[in-house]
Amino acid sequence: MEVLARCHTLAGFSEIAEGICRTFLCDAMHECHREIEGWLAPLAIRSRIDAAGNLCITYPALEADAPRLFIGSHLDTVPNAGAYDGILGVVLAIALLEALEGRRLPFAVEVIGFSEEEGIRFGTPFLGSRALVGSLDEPLLSKKDARGISMRQAIENFGLKSAEIPQAAMGPDVLGYLEVHIEQGPVLESLGHPLGIVEVIVGQSRLEVTFEGHANHAGTTPMNLRRDAVAAAAEWISAVENHAKYTADLMATVGAIQVKPGTGNVIAGEVRLSLDVRHRLDEARMTAVEYLLREAEEIATRRGGGFRWNLLLEQRSTPMNPLLVNEVARAVSQAGCEPYRMVSGAGHDAMIIAAKVPAAMLFLRTPGGVSHDPAETVAVGDIAKAVEAGCHLLEQLADSAEFLKRIQHA
Amino acid sequence: MEVLARCHTLAGFSEIAEGICRTFLCDAMHECHREIEGWLAPLAIRSRIDAAGNLCITYPALEADAPRLFIGSHLDTVPNAGAYDGILGVVLAIALLEALEGRRLPFAVEVIGFSEEEGIRFGTPFLGSRALVGSLDEPLLSKKDARGISMRQAIENFGLKSAEIPQAAMGPDVLGYLEVHIEQGPVLESLGHPLGIVEVIVGQSRLEVTFEGHANHAGTTPMNLRRDAVAAAAEWISAVENHAKYTADLMATVGAIQVKPGTGNVIAGEVRLSLDVRHRLDEARMTAVEYLLREAEEIATRRGGGFRWNLLLEQRSTPMNPLLVNEVARAVSQAGCEPYRMVSGAGHDAMIIAAKVPAAMLFLRTPGGVSHDPAETVAVGDIAKAVEAGCHLLEQLADSAEFLKRIQHA
Repeated sequence: MEVLARCHTLAGFSEIAEGICRTFLCDAMHECHREIEGWLAPLAIRSRIDAAGNLCITYPALEADAPRLFIGSHLDTVPNAGAYDGILGVVLAIALLEALEGRRLPFAVEVIGFSEEEGIRFGTPFLGSRALVGSLDEPLLSKKDARGISMRQAIENFGLKSAEIPQAAMGPDVLGYLEVHIEQGPVLESLGHPLGIVEVIVGQSRLEVTFEGHANHAGTTPMNLRRDAVAAAAEWISAVENHAKYTADLMATVGAIQVKPGTGNVIAGEVRLSLDVRHRLDEARMTAVEYLLREAEEIATRRGGGFRWNLLLEQRSTPMNPLLVNEVARAVSQAGCEPYRMVSGAGHDAMIIAAKVPAAMLFLRTPGGVSHDPAETVAVGDIAKAVEAGCHLLEQLADSAEFLKRIQHA
Repeated sequence: MEVLARCHTLAGFSEIAEGICRTFLCDAMHECHREIEGWLAPLAIRSRIDAAGNLCITYPALEADAPRLFIGSHLDTVPNAGAYDGILGVVLAIALLEALEGRRLPFAVEVIGFSEEEGIRFGTPFLGSRALVGSLDEPLLSKKDARGISMRQAIENFGLKSAEIPQAAMGPDVLGYLEVHIEQGPVLESLGHPLGIVEVIVGQSRLEVTFEGHANHAGTTPMNLRRDAVAAAAEWISAVENHAKYTADLMATVGAIQVKPGTGNVIAGEVRLSLDVRHRLDEARMTAVEYLLREAEEIATRRGGGFRWNLLLEQRSTPMNPLLVNEVARAVSQAGCEPYRMVSGAGHDAMIIAAKVPAAMLFLRTPGGVSHDPAETVAVGDIAKAVEAGCHLLEQLADSAEFLKRIQHA
């Protein structure tokens, strides 16, 4: 199938010899852009690169001044990536243009391949979509990569004019944004659904939580005279897991643990843990964080130890546009699939774009939930369903210019 | 008080500019030996250094061919040490010789300052006492320190003849060994006892235990579809703590944790833990290890994850000589202290020496249980009690040459 083959062709443009890696405006991104440009010749349309490095392909409307519908995803990757995360959404959008077979719609379709979503090169994600909402600003442009090259310089080095970034921002003519992306999780596979419709991108809290105990000799300190920070941390990790298991839609994860002094024959004096909490409802997330911090304090106090914490990140949830979500769900049904509505537990460009225009996301089932890994796969049949649903969506929206107006001003 | 002052004088002989560090046969050990030699002039006795670097001071008996009682501890330290660990036992033994005021006993008293107990320079502990039991052998002598100097070369560099190590071994004339040492734990302080009599040095098992889960995105993997190695490990750490808390005399510690990949937004795919288990009874220790490994397997299996383990160290417990222990207890009572019998949770030279001759240990209360740290202290009053008990012990043993014979052949 062409979509799959094209994803693999793009996977060949990598900044490393073995495996896939294509970070913000690396040289391989030029090749990636040129390859896609080549695919457009039969459509008699061309692509351009905006000042933030986003690839933009405009499929014209019936009339010259019609509004535009954006469809896309990102073209950058993490190091040692798979072939589909981001890229599939761009390739699939082009497949939708091809499926139109030259037919014009009451709106233009702008396929966008974002220059940056993963946050690898400059430690900040969503650089491409930030440019579209006007937030790729001076502090960001001054950030430097590991080799000391500023973002502004990277843009100039790629042959672009950083001074033109403001012109990359979307105007009032943009009707909405649809992003097609692999789920990167196991939910659709576990339920047997090829496609999922994202209703909301979850909010998240990231904290660093530290338990303080008393470092002591593991052989000379009886159990009843210990203040063991590892034991306190373990009790709390179980509490975190249980609270999330028995609270609907809550995800809570301890993924990092640092023990001081961290040797086998010394009782730990300090344990530092990461806490990642996500929920579709911000209030539920914040309630959970408060509960877990109270639990930590109770555990530490009962054990005669100390406890401190530090908020690293607080990000509100982003609902997708309800009317656009309904249209995507209808299109998924038309393609013969269960219109399963779900949350996205990961951030996506749609989260950024949703601040300015109605946005929606279509997820494709991810075998094994495996992503950010060379083993990432997508089933050919699922891609076909996604293309079919995408075609239905364009038909539906084209039949309802009225509706498009409503979305835009919702 | 002189004992305290002498410990602080020896603390000044360090191989580092700031703080105390005196590893096996470093240059500072020469100064340490010379200082102690100076203290012996009023006693009209001299010290010698054996081929393993042990300081040996013989206080003669009434008769020339009388047997010898060894009393001592070690003169080396860990890096950034306190002033008492090991050293106090040597200084206190000399104080006992002084307290005899020239009176001769039916046995000679040999004060020994072991050259090495901590295992810092060559990664193997008890080098000094190993020489006395004849196990400082070729494989050990070939070991190299961080600078590539072999143990044999270090001995030669110190001005000693490594070929003479066999002559350092104890002969059949040694009646027994008494070691005075700080407790390095909180037990005596918590009970209000200045002194403790060691009945047994605990055996220990050290293992590496690994929980295998499945690394996944912390945002896209719902709680019920996770195989979280951190959560499995936490459940087991609590089981380890509980089992040790509710099993008499058992100590079990998880002191090291390594998480892979170990980032806050990724569910852990693997967690590697240390397990340290100690008990006075070898069978109880081994039963506990088996139980904890079964628990780990049950937890891993129930969670759909894997589990493996690796035995790093297995060391049997070492009972002190019961008759000598009784004599030490009687001496402690004579000094007006509760004769509290306890285990040593840490290894000591007495553990090595006990393989050849009857051995016993007298512990001094360690404020806060703090050891291997510049904050290590000992109360002046407790030292006085230890000297008093030591004097009583020498009296008792002198009054019972018969008993000494029995001990030797017990």
